[in-house]
Amino acid sequence: MQLQVDLNCDMGESYGRWSLGQDAALVHHVTTASVASGFHAGDPTTIRRAVSAAVDAGCRVGAHVSLPDLMGFGRRYMAVSPSDLRDYCLYQIGAVAAFVEAAGGHLNHVKPHGALYVMADDNPDTALAIAQAVADYSTEVPLFVLNSRHAEAIASVGVTTVSEGFPDINYSATGSLIIEPHKQAWSPDVVAARALAMVVDKKVPTVEPGTEIDVDVTTVCIHGDSPNAVEVAQRTRQVLEDAGVLVTSSAIRP
Amino acid sequence: MQLQVDLNCDMGESYGRWSLGQDAALVHHVTTASVASGFHAGDPTTIRRAVSAAVDAGCRVGAHVSLPDLMGFGRRYMAVSPSDLRDYCLYQIGAVAAFVEAAGGHLNHVKPHGALYVMADDNPDTALAIAQAVADYSTEVPLFVLNSRHAEAIASVGVTTVSEGFPDINYSATGSLIIEPHKQAWSPDVVAARALAMVVDKKVPTVEPGTEIDVDVTTVCIHGDSPNAVEVAQRTRQVLEDAGVLVTSSAIRP
Amino acid sequence: MQLQVDLNCDMGESYGRWSLGQDAALVHHVTTASVASGFHAGDPTTIRRAVSAAVDAGCRVGAHVSLPDLMGFGRRYMAVSPSDLRDYCLYQIGAVAAFVEAAGGHLNHVKPHGALYVMADDNPDTALAIAQAVADYSTEVPLFVLNSRHAEAIASVGVTTVSEGFPDINYSATGSLIIEPHKQAWSPDVVAARALAMVVDKKVPTVEPGTEIDVDVTTVCIHGDSPNAVEVAQRTRQVLEDAGVLVTSSAIRP
Amino acid sequence: MQLQVDLNCDMGESYGRWSLGQDAALVHHVTTASVASGFHAGDPTTIRRAVSAAVDAGCRVGAHVSLPDLMGFGRRYMAVSPSDLRDYCLYQIGAVAAFVEAAGGHLNHVKPHGALYVMADDNPDTALAIAQAVADYSTEVPLFVLNSRHAEAIASVGVTTVSEGFPDINYSATGSLIIEPHKQAWSPDVVAARALAMVVDKKVPTVEPGTEIDVDVTTVCIHGDSPNAVEVAQRTRQVLEDAGVLVTSSAIRP
Repeated sequence: MQLQVDLNCDMGESYGRWSLGQDAALVHHVTTASVASGFHAGDPTTIRRAVSAAVDAGCRVGAHVSLPDLMGFGRRYMAVSPSDLRDYCLYQIGAVAAFVEAAGGHLNHVKPHGALYVMADDNPDTALAIAQAVADYSTEVPLFVLNSRHAEAIASVGVTTVSEGFPDINYSATGSLIIEPHKQAWSPDVVAARALAMVVDKKVPTVEPGTEIDVDVTTVCIHGDSPNAVEVAQRTRQVLEDAGVLVTSSAIRP
Repeated sequence: MQLQVDLNCDMGESYGRWSLGQDAALVHHVTTASVASGFHAGDPTTIRRAVSAAVDAGCRVGAHVSLPDLMGFGRRYMAVSPSDLRDYCLYQIGAVAAFVEAAGGHLNHVKPHGALYVMADDNPDTALAIAQAVADYSTEVPLFVLNSRHAEAIASVGVTTVSEGFPDINYSATGSLIIEPHKQAWSPDVVAARALAMVVDKKVPTVEPGTEIDVDVTTVCIHGDSPNAVEVAQRTRQVLEDAGVLVTSSAIRP
Repeated sequence: MQLQVDLNCDMGESYGRWSLGQDAALVHHVTTASVASGFHAGDPTTIRRAVSAAVDAGCRVGAHVSLPDLMGFGRRYMAVSPSDLRDYCLYQIGAVAAFVEAAGGHLNHVKPHGALYVMADDNPDTALAIAQAVADYSTEVPLFVLNSRHAEAIASVGVTTVSEGFPDINYSATGSLIIEPHKQAWSPDVVAARALAMVVDKKVPTVEPGTEIDVDVTTVCIHGDSPNAVEVAQRTRQVLEDAGVLVTSSAIRP
Repeated sequence: MQLQVDLNCDMGESYGRWSLGQDAALVHHVTTASVASGFHAGDPTTIRRAVSAAVDAGCRVGAHVSLPDLMGFGRRYMAVSPSDLRDYCLYQIGAVAAFVEAAGGHLNHVKPHGALYVMADDNPDTALAIAQAVADYSTEVPLFVLNSRHAEAIASVGVTTVSEGFPDINYSATGSLIIEPHKQAWSPDVVAARALAMVVDKKVPTVEPGTEIDVDVTTVCIHGDSPNAVEVAQRTRQVLEDAGVLVTSSAIRP
């Protein structure tokens, strides 16, 4: 059976006068877009534009939910209570979903952004709070996660998970992500090779020289705010397809 | 046939550490709640609480959409373009609707808040932009308006209007509202008498001594952030009911 | 020689439409005010009012600097880098100082608010970052701290410290503060007795039954956002004065 | 006597993760920088960087004060009361001044940004409110204005004015500015020629073909957020100097 994987990218990370990312170009190279939902980036006009561009290009769209930290772009840990976090996530999910529906689509997934993504991997209470917000909206919508660590807690509220790989972020030896506050350019060839290893070999190297960890990913993420994101996405997709991998959002659900 | 009217109130106007309004008490005296959507008030946790209280008490819930002005509580005119305004409104509508659905209800209506309400009455482009946002969400959801002035533009995108009366705000001689930046207490008897005159006589006095204007209202609004809002709502409902008026959200739609 | 102590209170914690605290009454019972600087509370109009009320009543005024978290009232830990934190603090110090100078005073002190206060006690890098911001403004201005733990780091940039006691917050057995997200009313008698014990006996009980820790405080803080702050401040001052303690901002510097 | 003029530019218009403008290059071509103060752009870290770059390059630094509108970049009219506006301006002035002092300089001027600049020209109450904020800080600091229209009101609170010309913005036939929400690139030659005409001929063309208005400018502004701002500033300065005009911040005050 042919290997398949979804290729997703962060989008809608502009804000008012400030532009970030190349959404209009990226939508042609990925299969799924995670759209910033207003708490770390993404004013409503940016959301509409990103969602429209994605839907028009045939991408599926999810909500990229975040901690309330515009100044820190959602990349700083905040001690938000699980109860407040659930509310913050539902607010953002509903807001983005309204634009997706208005564009003729349906919300495809929810993905925590930045520090919240790491928190959801570190702490089952955080993972559960986000999952509860997803369930508040719809149990039809899956949650992107780094691995299956908290899948049981998430399943307890009826939400399914989609495991995600990050070929353009370093992994620690224990399998956690080492977030860059300001995403730098990575070599497209390096990212593509790491993506291929994730999908075909189910392995990713860590920052400990000579070590790698096992992964089992349904979707691979390319960061939209790196300076060469378009080239990275294009190369990654090409290398995956050249190796016979089907790149499709159907990898998530038919 | 028995006269009927909806009685609505602004709710969810707290924000984080700051409390405003007495939502828990008010929900027992009104039939419909307009919940602040995060742009002038209403952090997500406040929205969840206000929506839950309203739904539990049998109130219908709408989104009280606003200009992005926390510091000014949405009570200051801002020159937002119609296109941006449509996006701001859709964002807020989707966010609040998600909480209403999670509480087991459906979004009942959309109402512009404060300065935006006045702008929607003054300017057909503003009214149309808000109506487009409503239509983006659902043409099943009506828009609260001061009068039928722009009903045609609003109808052009498939949205219906619900005319609203304000017994606790002064009307100018031309029928526009004279917004108080910081809502003061009004006599419950005065508000109740004005509400009754609106519903039964279809008249409301203006600030020009001896003048009144014709109104035809389907819903009557009590402000939630006045110091005596609960007493005002209670008295108004009682006076309406004592006069044989049926106070029910079915006045808006069955 | 007569014992003396400063009595300080948080002020200016309103924001736009939302009122919090009773600054106008509190200024008559304390000797020093720490004014919220806009990041957790305190829009500019609130700052001007709080500063004017304090200066007019003869209180000295400091800047109550915070993490950028309006929704969480600055009471949640955030992983802000020391470098960014220094900038956030200098911004707030400059802003509040401008109002103090305009009211005819001089900035008396800087005090971190909420979670930042605890972070400054837990982490010498945080304490140093705040001290650097103070030094950026003026080394004439002292920094309020929980104890002398990081006084050396703070002194390394030329800033002096003022040790502070909190009779209306619980201390852990290790001497750290147990912050309430939403400050509750405490008995005025209990707070006054704890304040007196701090000043005269140089002791404060902890939450471990039967244990107390040594303190050496130059200023005692009453929280301004508790429901009975005015009564607490009044009683505390009276009990201190009845015991012969001189309550004066000169305890900080002549 | 040699003609002289100051050449100023907007700086510090980044915000957190979002970069805008080329401050590091621009500081070498202009003589004065107006630094965004946090209300339309300019988080504290951006302010420190912009101020340091400017001071290090020998530029004088002023505060570019704005309406509180991050999402609209301060380019939308808001009906802020004069009293609130004065407070908003003093807050921003104090904040930026603290960074200027920390960098070893003194605040050179105050300039309203975007919509507030136009409001200050349209409405004497707005001009007076801003001037009062300047006077609250120091009457040594002049206020940049479009013309001398409200100089008397401004002088009534002890503040002096500096008349400013905008070679990269269109003037209406009545002499008001036609603000672009999103600044576009203008030809460096066109801007330089318009600047020269302002300084030497004391004339600027308007959008009415064949008409021009009289101007008398002490400082000429180049917009920092246009895509080719560095080239425009460089060319403008060169053309002015080639024509024998001394480009110096001493044109404002010795």
